Amino acid sequence: MTKNSGSKKRPEVVISQATDIPSKVNCEAVEVMIADPDLAAQIIPDCKHLTWCQSTWAGNAPLLKLDKTNYTLTALRGVFGPLMREYVFAYLLQYARNLTEFAKQQAATPPRWASAPRLPLRGQTLGIVGMGDIGKALIPVAQSFGMTVIGVSRSGSAVKQVERMYNTRELYQFAQQADHVVNLMPDTPGTDGLLNEAFFACLKPHSIFINAGRGNAVDDEGLLISLDKHNLAHAVLDVFTQEPLPSSHPFWHHPKVTVTAHTAAESRPADVANVFLDNAIRFTHGEALLYQCDFAKGY
Amino acid sequence: MTKNSGSKKRPEVVISQATDIPSKVNCEAVEVMIADPDLAAQIIPDCKHLTWCQSTWAGNAPLLKLDKTNYTLTALRGVFGPLMREYVFAYLLQYARNLTEFAKQQAATPPRWASAPRLPLRGQTLGIVGMGDIGKALIPVAQSFGMTVIGVSRSGSAVKQVERMYNTRELYQFAQQADHVVNLMPDTPGTDGLLNEAFFACLKPHSIFINAGRGNAVDDEGLLISLDKHNLAHAVLDVFTQEPLPSSHPFWHHPKVTVTAHTAAESRPADVANVFLDNAIRFTHGEALLYQCDFAKGY
Repeated sequence: MTKNSGSKKRPEVVISQATDIPSKVNCEAVEVMIADPDLAAQIIPDCKHLTWCQSTWAGNAPLLKLDKTNYTLTALRGVFGPLMREYVFAYLLQYARNLTEFAKQQAATPPRWASAPRLPLRGQTLGIVGMGDIGKALIPVAQSFGMTVIGVSRSGSAVKQVERMYNTRELYQFAQQADHVVNLMPDTPGTDGLLNEAFFACLKPHSIFINAGRGNAVDDEGLLISLDKHNLAHAVLDVFTQEPLPSSHPFWHHPKVTVTAHTAAESRPADVANVFLDNAIRFTHGEALLYQCDFAKGY
Repeated sequence: MTKNSGSKKRPEVVISQATDIPSKVNCEAVEVMIADPDLAAQIIPDCKHLTWCQSTWAGNAPLLKLDKTNYTLTALRGVFGPLMREYVFAYLLQYARNLTEFAKQQAATPPRWASAPRLPLRGQTLGIVGMGDIGKALIPVAQSFGMTVIGVSRSGSAVKQVERMYNTRELYQFAQQADHVVNLMPDTPGTDGLLNEAFFACLKPHSIFINAGRGNAVDDEGLLISLDKHNLAHAVLDVFTQEPLPSSHPFWHHPKVTVTAHTAAESRPADVANVFLDNAIRFTHGEALLYQCDFAKGY
């Protein structure tokens, strides 16, 4: 990338190396990089002159776990909220309105004209674990359906339009107050296995649990036991400790588990380009970059 | 019902006749009635002293079509919006997020870890035909998903937070601007068959059409032809000209039609009781009743 953008709105960006095979990169020549974190992680330790890496992902554990921290890492942020809120409410409403039972009645021979149990979202409490920009994007939608919102963050400090915030040591009290829970925590050593059997035991028989953050936060075994004990009604899982989820994993065939393929909020090329270009303007002007990761916090 | 409530908050209500067999009612004695409109329609012409009938339904075509109009008819209103918005967005999101395809991938042997086409609601335009209190309840939800809202009413006069209103003579221009359409019009002679083949031809191959108003507005044959011509993607139908929908009706087995059993927003006893009691207080105080139907307009 050339730095002399002058006064133009958009910097003149020259991509000098482009590949999806990390070993083909001439690391000596790299100062700025735009990359998938899993590919970048293979070569970043050798990029001695790297000053800035724009990730194409929201979660950057592969890079944040490396020893090298003497560069600016920026995440893809501010673009996933609108996609994530549609994923979360598609599944919450699928259960609230019992779409599966109505579909069965239509498919029956003869078709059945009948009602089926439903549980309106209105009046229920949505619990959001991880209150970054994606978590915050759920709040206005939840409120438009007449739900109360509570949340969890590391600090537990107040968030606008959220009835009550809890810190990560208060997870069980939080779960006791929630009807449904959405996890959006990043993959950090601090979030490993936080959502365990004891956590799920605090939910309700009608609760839906959605994991659209990272797989590391969920204790798979604890979740399966809790589902079998009817401590919650259903789990909708988009992220896993191992991806793709191995064919043999019990999640795939469990009647109370919905599996999607880390597709809740996919990075779209146009979004990546826009975030990179906005940051490139700041970079060429020597301004602070947007969406910087904190190596100490791990996200 | 006794009229002497005095200064008490709640009037003393005495139900002097209660039955679900209309022929058993002593019509001569009826001054106030709370009833399902299809049952009430059988006896209302004989209730010479009737002054007020509180309906337990939102739509009251069976009563509004009778010659007798010398009494006050009040509808069940103000309670269906919260249920209807969950129905509408459950189905819009089912298609937007392609829940069916992800479920198929999970059920495959071996299960398939894969993405599937989706079309976000964000940026799309929701068209609402019939802008009463139920239609208006959809607006904040649509906006929370980043949708634009347009609408149709008899007058076409402006509605807050609606980008553009059309009158019923401008239905085709309206349909050309909409991505998805929800019908919520009441059953009146003026709405019979308004949503016909020419209307559906104005939609888009990705359009979802939801009928949660009344069945009379839809030309069934026109809708089926339009679905087969790919003029729209799918129809979600909760109401029909004949209910229950006969087992032989092609809607039941059409791959692009979802049938539900007039359950989008069901009258709940608690809601009926609250609306009746609020109106009973007004009645005993000689005040104007809420949710009065207009016999001339037919709703």
